[in-house]
Amino acid sequence: MDKPVNTQTLIKDQGVPRIVVVGGGFGGLELVKGLRKMNAQVVLFDRYNHHTFQPLLYQVATSGLETGSIIYPFRKSLNRQKNFFFRLGDVKHIDADNNQVETSIGSVKYDHLVIATGATTNYYGMQDIAQHAVPLKEIQDSILLRNKIIKNFENALLTADHEKRNSYMDYVIVGGGPTGVEVAGALAELKKHVFPKDYRELNLMEMDIHLVEAGPRLLGAMSEKSGAKAQQFLEKMGVKVHLNTSVKSYDGYRVTLGSDEELITKTLVWAAGVKGAPIDGIRVESMVGGNRLKVNHFNQVEGYDNIYAVGDIAAMIDDDNPKGHPMMAPPAMQQGRHLAKNLLNKYEKDRPMKPFKYFDKGSMATIGRNKAVVEMPNGSKTQGFFAWLIWMFIHLMYLVGFRNRLLVLINWVMSYFSYDKSNRLIIGRTGVEDFQEKDNVIKPGNPQLSKNP
Amino acid sequence: MDKPVNTQTLIKDQGVPRIVVVGGGFGGLELVKGLRKMNAQVVLFDRYNHHTFQPLLYQVATSGLETGSIIYPFRKSLNRQKNFFFRLGDVKHIDADNNQVETSIGSVKYDHLVIATGATTNYYGMQDIAQHAVPLKEIQDSILLRNKIIKNFENALLTADHEKRNSYMDYVIVGGGPTGVEVAGALAELKKHVFPKDYRELNLMEMDIHLVEAGPRLLGAMSEKSGAKAQQFLEKMGVKVHLNTSVKSYDGYRVTLGSDEELITKTLVWAAGVKGAPIDGIRVESMVGGNRLKVNHFNQVEGYDNIYAVGDIAAMIDDDNPKGHPMMAPPAMQQGRHLAKNLLNKYEKDRPMKPFKYFDKGSMATIGRNKAVVEMPNGSKTQGFFAWLIWMFIHLMYLVGFRNRLLVLINWVMSYFSYDKSNRLIIGRTGVEDFQEKDNVIKPGNPQLSKNP
Repeated sequence: MDKPVNTQTLIKDQGVPRIVVVGGGFGGLELVKGLRKMNAQVVLFDRYNHHTFQPLLYQVATSGLETGSIIYPFRKSLNRQKNFFFRLGDVKHIDADNNQVETSIGSVKYDHLVIATGATTNYYGMQDIAQHAVPLKEIQDSILLRNKIIKNFENALLTADHEKRNSYMDYVIVGGGPTGVEVAGALAELKKHVFPKDYRELNLMEMDIHLVEAGPRLLGAMSEKSGAKAQQFLEKMGVKVHLNTSVKSYDGYRVTLGSDEELITKTLVWAAGVKGAPIDGIRVESMVGGNRLKVNHFNQVEGYDNIYAVGDIAAMIDDDNPKGHPMMAPPAMQQGRHLAKNLLNKYEKDRPMKPFKYFDKGSMATIGRNKAVVEMPNGSKTQGFFAWLIWMFIHLMYLVGFRNRLLVLINWVMSYFSYDKSNRLIIGRTGVEDFQEKDNVIKPGNPQLSKNP
Repeated sequence: MDKPVNTQTLIKDQGVPRIVVVGGGFGGLELVKGLRKMNAQVVLFDRYNHHTFQPLLYQVATSGLETGSIIYPFRKSLNRQKNFFFRLGDVKHIDADNNQVETSIGSVKYDHLVIATGATTNYYGMQDIAQHAVPLKEIQDSILLRNKIIKNFENALLTADHEKRNSYMDYVIVGGGPTGVEVAGALAELKKHVFPKDYRELNLMEMDIHLVEAGPRLLGAMSEKSGAKAQQFLEKMGVKVHLNTSVKSYDGYRVTLGSDEELITKTLVWAAGVKGAPIDGIRVESMVGGNRLKVNHFNQVEGYDNIYAVGDIAAMIDDDNPKGHPMMAPPAMQQGRHLAKNLLNKYEKDRPMKPFKYFDKGSMATIGRNKAVVEMPNGSKTQGFFAWLIWMFIHLMYLVGFRNRLLVLINWVMSYFSYDKSNRLIIGRTGVEDFQEKDNVIKPGNPQLSKNP
């Protein structure tokens, strides 16, 4: 591609209203599908050519799943939808006065704009952590983390220095939410079942996995019982859980905790928070805490008539949800589907829009084989094997595409019986280059380069 | 990893002979497996942590297969072999006087050295082609080509200029051997079955696929009949076959043929030749044409007593094989297995080594669904559907690992019934960066960066 092209070249005007959707995550994708019958031109912009199933990123990062089985090309999912148009590009600026967005591939006019840019990792302003930690929000993050874990063990073989060897073998995960818990559990399984066979020359007892949480318990969004159960599962698997503990600094080698205790690791996984990933050009008065966009019950961004937002980026604040809905897949999907109906109502059927209402389906996290915690919205809870089956079933169900479901299922079945995780592959650059040094080139944790969506 | 470490740290001396194997391709891997019962320390060096099944690289490049299904971690295949040690590193120099190799991670002593570094792309000294063409020898090549093909079509949407659009949609493949034929066939299938659905805005009739071969027919290593049949298959699928045609230059946009005819394309796939990838330090007298190492019938490199070579890098020249064996998987695998027996005979059982004899199992190439050509060593030939079944069966059988076989089989079955190729994914960097410009960073076609094995 050469220079940014003008509107007319970027996409042909079809004489029907143009709805531009920015971001094909859970919210954006459901919205686009919901608009399939609308007499409109639906244009999706994304920086990737595929949807990413974020809840399973950690399994790619820990060699459990293949990259290709949790991402799915937009064009493949939607190529039967006649009003759908995809453009691979990064939306950089919204010019609301002129109903136009500026993108990396040119400008485009919209009649209605839907922002579904999701969330990005929140380092709470700590630059050293942003520079050295590994986030886990995008497919690229999970590939980098997988490469890094395997490279770490190859490097650990090469040093006689005890502390240095441990810096390669030890892991610090910050954030006791579902992602942190799941990463810690998966690393504990690698330690127990996989690495002792792969690295007979190393003493795997030396591998320490630390899970650091600032709050008083794990899985803060779930009940105390579930948090305690997850902790019990993890500790039984050898994970060292640090509660009420913050992280002060990290220089790529030394982690300083709030207590001034130090941990040594080359790999700090940051799963301690997210923030909205807004687009430049939206007036600041429409933003609330955590970089989210304030929307009304129709997902309209405050102060705009034809700009909407769904998913993590949208903060729908009311008495029931003083901070908006949780930044997770279910509210995003529900908002996407709901907004599609509202756009149809408002612009095509001339009916009033209906306010969004979130249907809480419960929450869950898995810790490892046969271990999960599940909470239903009616308050019922289950833990262990049955919860783990529910967790797997729900994740398979929500994966996009029959093929991906089949591949993930086969991988899970084979891993279950073999106790193995097969994707221990360094892909993306030659294994011999030093990962640490090259790393900054595309590392998404680097704030200047941080990507959305 | 910090600085190169000394021998003692790099790998512990176990008081038994140390056999260092450089490269885990078909030859190296079979050799290592064949040594499993030897009272020796078998140390494999490779730049990747996985074996690559090169015959299917083209299917990864054309979205037919997932990356992970044709590569397999060395540690996973060999972690039950007690005398096996793996080191992720690049062997840079052989110091034969001191029985030592210098690698990117330090020096290591050997008692016996086996060079199995394979082959690399041969541009026959044409720097412009080396710089701009896409090779297809490593897993990284196939990912880059896949990314590039998809990015090309996304870019083609953005230009109103006819020639420029065609430069993105047209493909020139140089080399009419199996790789060239297979790439051309796979692109023709994308053109017919996949891209018309994905890119409704483009006129796929504009997509031209040129296959350029310097010799008088395709599949020069096979019979005239097979070459003609492959050509007939391809032409029926719309591929433009140019025989007796050389390529003079390529600047990334304009291909100049020997006839001074010009073709316009952003993507020239170079499958026109390979050459050995030797390691620095071997005396020049031991090298023959095509950068291969001259070996005797015991795979000993000429002029050395304890240095051996197997596979593409080894030229075992005799009356039957004036240029050595063909640079393909079967001779490499047979040499690897045979050398393992000879090393056991010579160093452990004190028996004489036996000369290697190549058992020709025939050759084959596939053109697309239901289409292949197969030749048996007894001269019998078959083409079409039955040949295609044989091709698939043989490739599945030789894939490393049950899991990879299963994944490839499922992919093939699903693709067969859906006429789809599902892995249309841009992975490795964000889709919005300009592929062309970033490309040189890790492009293996770049001669300074060319990798072996």
